[in-house]
Formats: sequence, C-alpha cells, structure tokens
Amino acid sequence: MKINDNFFMKLAIDEAWKYQFISFPNPAVGCVVVKGESEILAIEAHKEAGQAHAEVNALKAAFLKYYPNDILKTKSSSKQIHEYLIKNHNGFFNDCKVYVTLEPCNHEGKTPACANLLKELKPQKVIVAHEDLNNIAKGGCETLKNVNIDIDIGCMKKEAYELLYPFLKWNSGTFIFYKMAQTLNGSIDGSISSNSAKAYVHTLRDKIDLMLIGGNTVRTDMPTLDARYIAGRAPDVFIYSKNKVFDTNIPLFKIPNRKVHISDDLFKLLDYKFVMVEGTYNLLDTLKDRLDYIVLLVNPKIRNGANALNEIDIDFEIVHENYIGEEKIMFLKRKS
Amino acid sequence: MKINDNFFMKLAIDEAWKYQFISFPNPAVGCVVVKGESEILAIEAHKEAGQAHAEVNALKAAFLKYYPNDILKTKSSSKQIHEYLIKNHNGFFNDCKVYVTLEPCNHEGKTPACANLLKELKPQKVIVAHEDLNNIAKGGCETLKNVNIDIDIGCMKKEAYELLYPFLKWNSGTFIFYKMAQTLNGSIDGSISSNSAKAYVHTLRDKIDLMLIGGNTVRTDMPTLDARYIAGRAPDVFIYSKNKVFDTNIPLFKIPNRKVHISDDLFKLLDYKFVMVEGTYNLLDTLKDRLDYIVLLVNPKIRNGANALNEIDIDFEIVHENYIGEEKIMFLKRKS
Repeated sequence: MKINDNFFMKLAIDEAWKYQFISFPNPAVGCVVVKGESEILAIEAHKEAGQAHAEVNALKAAFLKYYPNDILKTKSSSKQIHEYLIKNHNGFFNDCKVYVTLEPCNHEGKTPACANLLKELKPQKVIVAHEDLNNIAKGGCETLKNVNIDIDIGCMKKEAYELLYPFLKWNSGTFIFYKMAQTLNGSIDGSISSNSAKAYVHTLRDKIDLMLIGGNTVRTDMPTLDARYIAGRAPDVFIYSKNKVFDTNIPLFKIPNRKVHISDDLFKLLDYKFVMVEGTYNLLDTLKDRLDYIVLLVNPKIRNGANALNEIDIDFEIVHENYIGEEKIMFLKRKS
Repeated sequence: MKINDNFFMKLAIDEAWKYQFISFPNPAVGCVVVKGESEILAIEAHKEAGQAHAEVNALKAAFLKYYPNDILKTKSSSKQIHEYLIKNHNGFFNDCKVYVTLEPCNHEGKTPACANLLKELKPQKVIVAHEDLNNIAKGGCETLKNVNIDIDIGCMKKEAYELLYPFLKWNSGTFIFYKMAQTLNGSIDGSISSNSAKAYVHTLRDKIDLMLIGGNTVRTDMPTLDARYIAGRAPDVFIYSKNKVFDTNIPLFKIPNRKVHISDDLFKLLDYKFVMVEGTYNLLDTLKDRLDYIVLLVNPKIRNGANALNEIDIDFEIVHENYIGEEKIMFLKRKS
C-alpha cells in the first residue's frame, strides 16, 4: 500500500465519519498531523458543535505526542489551546504537514479561526481535501498562502465531498435520512437491533431537528420516540397521516417542549434542517425522491422474514460504513 | 484516535485481508514497518503462494521509502531480496519496529526463512499478533529472542486469529464457505452482481479446490462454473443431487482436467481443503452446521424480490469487509 497524501487524508476522512451527524449543525471534519515525511503524530476530528475544531484537536495531540507531560494537556477549550500553542510551539510544526478534510475556517465564531492558528504555527504544508463553500468561514487557504505556507487543495476531494454533503444540504435547506434496521438477509420483522445500535439511534434522535414517522406506526406501536437511552433531548415529531385522529394520551404526546405535527403535507419538512425518518417501506416509497441517505443498521444474522413489501427500485452509493458493536452501519446515498 | 501498537497492527491486518483466500494454501499475513516512534514506512502483505512473504515485501518497501533509487527496487524474488538486504541494510532497521500479523516463519521452504532475515537486520522490536501453530514453520520468535531482539506477542490477537482462521481450517481439514450475492434489502432474484464482483468470484474459483453446487441449479441454469473472466483455472465441481442423471453435454462437463462428482454424500467434501458453495438457500439449510463462512456480496440497490425462502436461523460475526468496486463484500463467520 502506498503511504502518500491519499493514505493520510483517508485516515482523516475515516476519523471524521465517526462524528457524522453528531457534529450537527457543524460539518464533520477530520485532521491528521504528520512530521517530516511520514511520522504520524495525530488523527483527530471535530466531535460536537461548540467543541474544538479538528485542526485544534490534532495540533494539540501532535504536540503532546512529543511532550506528553506538557501543561498543554490541561487545556481543553479551543481558545486556551489556540493561545497556548501560539505562545509555546517553538517551531515544532515547521516540519509538519497538516491534512484536513475541509479548508480551515477563517472566521472567529464560537471558537477562534483555525487559519489564524495555522498561520502562527507555520507548518511546512497544509493539504486540504475540499474547499469551504460557506461564505462566512471560507478564505482559510488564502490566509495561509499570504504568509507563504505551502497549500495543496483537492486531495481525495470526492471522498471529502461525500463527508461534507450532509452539512452542505442542511446548511442550504433540509437533509433527510431514513433509518432502517434489518438482518443480513433483509428481514425487517420483529426486534432486530442490539442495545448498542438502539443507543446510537437515540444519539441521533438527540441531534436531529425533526423525526418523521407514519401514522400507522404510531397507532400500532405507540412509541415514545425520545432519546432516553442516552438521557438526550427528544426531537419534534411529524406524524405523516391523512387521518388526523390519535390517542394523545400515549407518551409521544406527553414530552415537554416537543412539537408534534400531524399532517400529510410533506412540504412542511422543509422548515427543518435535519430530519430523520423511522418507518416502514411504505414511507420509503412516498419519500424516495426527497431522500438524501438511508442509514442502514445490519444485524449479522439470517432470519426468516419479509423484506421488500412494495415495488421499490432505488440505487445507492455506499458513502461510508462502520461498526456499532457487532452490527454494521452503512451510510447509503441515493443516486440521482 | 490513539496512534499505538494496535493502530499499526490494524493496518497490517487490513492489508492482509485484501489477499484472504487468494494466498491459498498459504495464510493471509500482513506486515507494517515503523521507524522510530511512529514514522510509517511500509504496509504490505503476502499476496500469493510462491511469492515473497509479508515481512519481505514490507522490509523492501521500507528501505525503498528512504532510498527510492536503490538497486533493491530491481530485486523481485524473495531470495534476492533476502540476500540484498542482509548485505546492504547498514543498520537501517535498528531503530525500526516490525508489526507482523503472524509469527515470522522459521523454515526455509519455497522462500528463505523470515526469522533469519529479521535476525540479520536486527530491528529494535518485532511485534507479533498471533503465534504460528504450524509445526514446520514455527519457532520464529525463539530465533529472534536468541539474538536479543525485543519481541511482543499478542497485540490484536483476536483479530489476527480471525485473519488466520481459514488457513488453520484448510491446513488441518476443510474450509467451506458459501458465496452469496444479494441487493441491500436481501433480494436474491435475477442478476445482481456487477462485472467486477463477477471477476472476483472467478478469482476465487481459480483458487479453490472444489466448488459445490445444487443439482437443480445445474439443470436449470446450466452454468459452466469456470474462471474465464480472469483466464483462470476451472475448479473441480461437486453436484449435490439425489438424482444422478444430468445432460453431460453442457459446458460444465466439457472442461479438460476437471473432475465432476455427482453425489448426495457431503462427507466427500472432506477430501478437499478449500471448498466454495454457490447456490440457493436450500443448500444453505443443508450445509449450515458445516459452514465456516458466508462471503456475501451486496449490491447497493433496493429491489423488490424474495429473500429468505426457508426457516433458517444462523448468527454470524462480521470478521471483515471490503469493497469490490461499488459493491460490498462481507466475510461472515458462523457463530458456533
């Protein structure tokens, strides 16, 4: 296997995918720091809105790889790390290459601008997979070029675009994904997911703006649709139903500060940025032209049980996959 | 992400998996060479029987990473590389760590012993994931300890065991895997696989000892069951059928040097070491207690079509997965 820019960028992209959706409303971003030709010092990501950006986490980890007992290890806020590194880097990064999946931000928001930090640390080279399309944050590469830091843009751009895609979509409109769980052979009957997969679904519910579910599922299963496994926030719910009559004594309707819409007008989804659908193949058929992703949880067992119930033809690209415990998670992007 | 022994060993294991089955009758083995603390120089694997072992490929690549124009690049046979490195290493590996998924062989066979090469190159440390259980080849760690090379055994041992498992099985008996292809939702109707997935299946056919197939499939589909997409060798065929009457004019029976068994006695499979089953769920039901793996090719599309046809309950562990073009390949080990 070739150990080159693509290899290091792939490590950054894979690390970022671990926090895909979790970083909402921010993009998932990964960063790798390499000293000299191929001494790998850090593989980090942006984990959650309000926390440090990928570059900051990676630069901190890289410095601590050499100086594990440095006082830097006690600094946790982005601002503290910025300030400490700018004062104490002592040229440490001058022979380093920094691989980042998205152009470093040029904008002082909740956290200081990464481009400014890199400008001060003066790494030998910054390799960027995808430019920033956000009018407020962009311009990071320009800032670095102006102080003569070597910049390379476009390494693994297609993979970085797929990583960035949910952000691009929710930032300019609505990103809609369908969560499904099945066995290896596609059976959707009965209880399928493990506890760790269920906890992951609750982690997603804690992040999304809105959950869409079919009226029949609400009537039959009477789900609460909260995020209790992780003590998280319960999202607003959109019940897709022509028949507007529901037993509002079920727990779903009793959650404080939750809005519940009952409607068959899907246009209302577009008031939200980040929508998860949980449901059956019926709803999949209705939504298929508006869907961005299917997030498919696959439990590795074969069971007798029905799979496709309708005439549905959809083609996907597997943009990423990972494990949740022993189960697979696949991020499937609808081909248009 | 922590950059530690596990991180480097995982790179070696993943590289080796690319050649799982293809290395038959040899085990799939991977090797990573790291200079100093974390300067990654090579990620290589054993690719095919008769070719260089993983360690030899990795040590060569590591040396060439520093000296890309060295005459070593013209050496391709294992013996040549051994001899050249032993003469010309000049202490290059003394500050290197060598990660290898299987204990280096201690036995001069088709290729010289890797333990002997490492003994001469004297790396700082050799990290071995799994000891060699083969009576002929084992003892490599002992050889290295005797010359005071630091040895660590057991890093990611469970993952290395899964990598080694097919070899352990075919080396001491018969390894049987079931090749299946389906859509995302488990449909097995119609033509499913892409051309690259078909070529991969032919690559497997070229390597296996025996292919098992059901009598009805032969009668209905009249398949040739050769490896023509890769101009490879056609394996022997075992037609599982109570009814022994077949039209022997179909191409399957016309391939020179191919043995075709027609039998309903599965015990005969045990005369072979490496058996692939291609067939329907019926055959899966018959074989489920003898099966080691399912190798599942998943085409990322949803199509209306049947999945499980029988009452089958089998649990699996996903031991590895990869891509073949846009399709997924999953290596599923039956849980016992």
